[in-house]
Amino acid sequence: MKWYLVASLLTILTSSQGILTTLSQTNGKYKYDYATIPFLAEVFKLIVSSVFLWRERKKSPPPKMTTDWKSVRLFPIPSVIYLIHNNVQFATLMYVDTSTYQIMGNLKIVTTGILFRLFLKKKLSNLQWMAIVLLAVGTTTSQVKGCGEASCDSLFSAPIQGYMLGILSACLSALAGVYTEFLMKKNNDSLYWQNVQLYTFGSIFNMVRLVVDDFRGGFEKGPWWQRLFNGYSITTWLVVLNLGSTGLLVSWLMKYADNIVKVYSTSMAMLLTMVLSVFLFSFKPTLQLFLGIIVCMMSLHMYFAPPHMLVDIPPAIKSDPESLVNVPVDRKTDS
Amino acid sequence: MKWYLVASLLTILTSSQGILTTLSQTNGKYKYDYATIPFLAEVFKLIVSSVFLWRERKKSPPPKMTTDWKSVRLFPIPSVIYLIHNNVQFATLMYVDTSTYQIMGNLKIVTTGILFRLFLKKKLSNLQWMAIVLLAVGTTTSQVKGCGEASCDSLFSAPIQGYMLGILSACLSALAGVYTEFLMKKNNDSLYWQNVQLYTFGSIFNMVRLVVDDFRGGFEKGPWWQRLFNGYSITTWLVVLNLGSTGLLVSWLMKYADNIVKVYSTSMAMLLTMVLSVFLFSFKPTLQLFLGIIVCMMSLHMYFAPPHMLVDIPPAIKSDPESLVNVPVDRKTDS
Repeated sequence: MKWYLVASLLTILTSSQGILTTLSQTNGKYKYDYATIPFLAEVFKLIVSSVFLWRERKKSPPPKMTTDWKSVRLFPIPSVIYLIHNNVQFATLMYVDTSTYQIMGNLKIVTTGILFRLFLKKKLSNLQWMAIVLLAVGTTTSQVKGCGEASCDSLFSAPIQGYMLGILSACLSALAGVYTEFLMKKNNDSLYWQNVQLYTFGSIFNMVRLVVDDFRGGFEKGPWWQRLFNGYSITTWLVVLNLGSTGLLVSWLMKYADNIVKVYSTSMAMLLTMVLSVFLFSFKPTLQLFLGIIVCMMSLHMYFAPPHMLVDIPPAIKSDPESLVNVPVDRKTDS
Repeated sequence: MKWYLVASLLTILTSSQGILTTLSQTNGKYKYDYATIPFLAEVFKLIVSSVFLWRERKKSPPPKMTTDWKSVRLFPIPSVIYLIHNNVQFATLMYVDTSTYQIMGNLKIVTTGILFRLFLKKKLSNLQWMAIVLLAVGTTTSQVKGCGEASCDSLFSAPIQGYMLGILSACLSALAGVYTEFLMKKNNDSLYWQNVQLYTFGSIFNMVRLVVDDFRGGFEKGPWWQRLFNGYSITTWLVVLNLGSTGLLVSWLMKYADNIVKVYSTSMAMLLTMVLSVFLFSFKPTLQLFLGIIVCMMSLHMYFAPPHMLVDIPPAIKSDPESLVNVPVDRKTDS
């Protein structure tokens, strides 16, 4: 399967996620416990990956599976990072409002590029660095509040702790992504086996979260398993299936493509959601949305287009057949 | 003289122009007739160019001067285009408000790129085209109204005629620039001789405008030459000198660099003015100004940096000493 097809599918599903979540609300509120969604999505991913692994084991040659504890113990780490990230996110929101938090979230694009370079030792050209910065600028531009909208001067007026925590949050989010890529690529184990390990720990961590929520709430509404599907509609189930499917696509991209491809997919999804919202929820289109989309499209082209399409390589070089072949191959193995 | 030094000076002077013009106002109004400013600036440029031409003629070899009527008759054309442009601008402002007009003005960057390619047959790489679009997007982003500011939903709500005239205005403005570049480069006549021709016609056209204004106003305030310096302060004179100097620098760039360099200079000046206004006139900095500046800086680097600095040219090519030398030279002769 080609990585760009998977990335496009991820864009479409991630974009549907926002729209389905909005549609699953009743009068702007959730009738169900939102914390149950990621738990069920983890369970869904675990079931799907287990089935695929089981089918793969019946074939020959059997899938490569490292069951050594030294390897398995690395798989809960992404869940641990996400747990810390969630708490930092909670702390950040005590200092800044949600729209400032959303704007700061775009910093994740740049931190992913930096950690990708530092930890995975992937080299990026100057143009690719510029593309990454432009992607972050483009997504931020699209989110700039139009005139007449609420919360005007809150953006530069939050306490410094809020911004520090926002930066920490962006680093943790990038770290989780880069670490997962490292896990998926460190050996040629079966993708499904790696997924089973990831999602087993993912399910456990999400279950623990539900239990902790129950303890915090003093079991007022009863234990989580008794009210797991309370208020679920068909749309709620679609939200679960969609979240699970995007997770599986991200896993695939982490193994066969990379974090930057994932970042582009989800950024494009954010823009697509905004465009769809114009039609579905009569969201008012702004000039800044239009400008942000242009910047992101330019960034996409700058990052992924082969260099000879972007710059005029001098004739002396064009006539060298080896170099012409080298250019696209060089980029493909990188991504 | 290096073109980038001239371009930087043009940026600084163009930026001062906005600030000086604001400073020359008394309680937000002009005490002098603003139409006298471009006339005096043309006269200033004519005097300076005549002096330089006179000095040049005393040297040997004497400057190359084509005095054929077939050549001279081409020099009023930029003035004619500007005259049409001014009228189109006036018509446009009957349909759209000034902030929409300002936003549409950024289209000039893209139309200049297109006419530059079509009429002057200059080739631009894909990356350079993207840089030009990004420059227009960046300058527009910086001008997006912040929340709380006036004129909210006027941007997409003007009649279609307004937008058509805005596009026509952008084309005329680009045409004047591209035509001037053609004039300056069509032969190796002395720059000062070319300037004398341009500014003689420029002075005449501006004088005619003052006379027409007088007729329109029914000579209520007396003929223009009697009230030419009315209400002039030292700042007003600085505005004239500054406008004249920027004109001379633009002429130089048209002959020894090109329209794109000029477009970058003036766009950077616009951003510089906004940044300086934050300090001088306690203009409130917006997130969109910051984002616009990043986009324009990226665009600048994308357009002017030699390709080998932007993309990783495969090793087989890097080892070829000729190609490495070719790259920067190729770009310099273009610009």
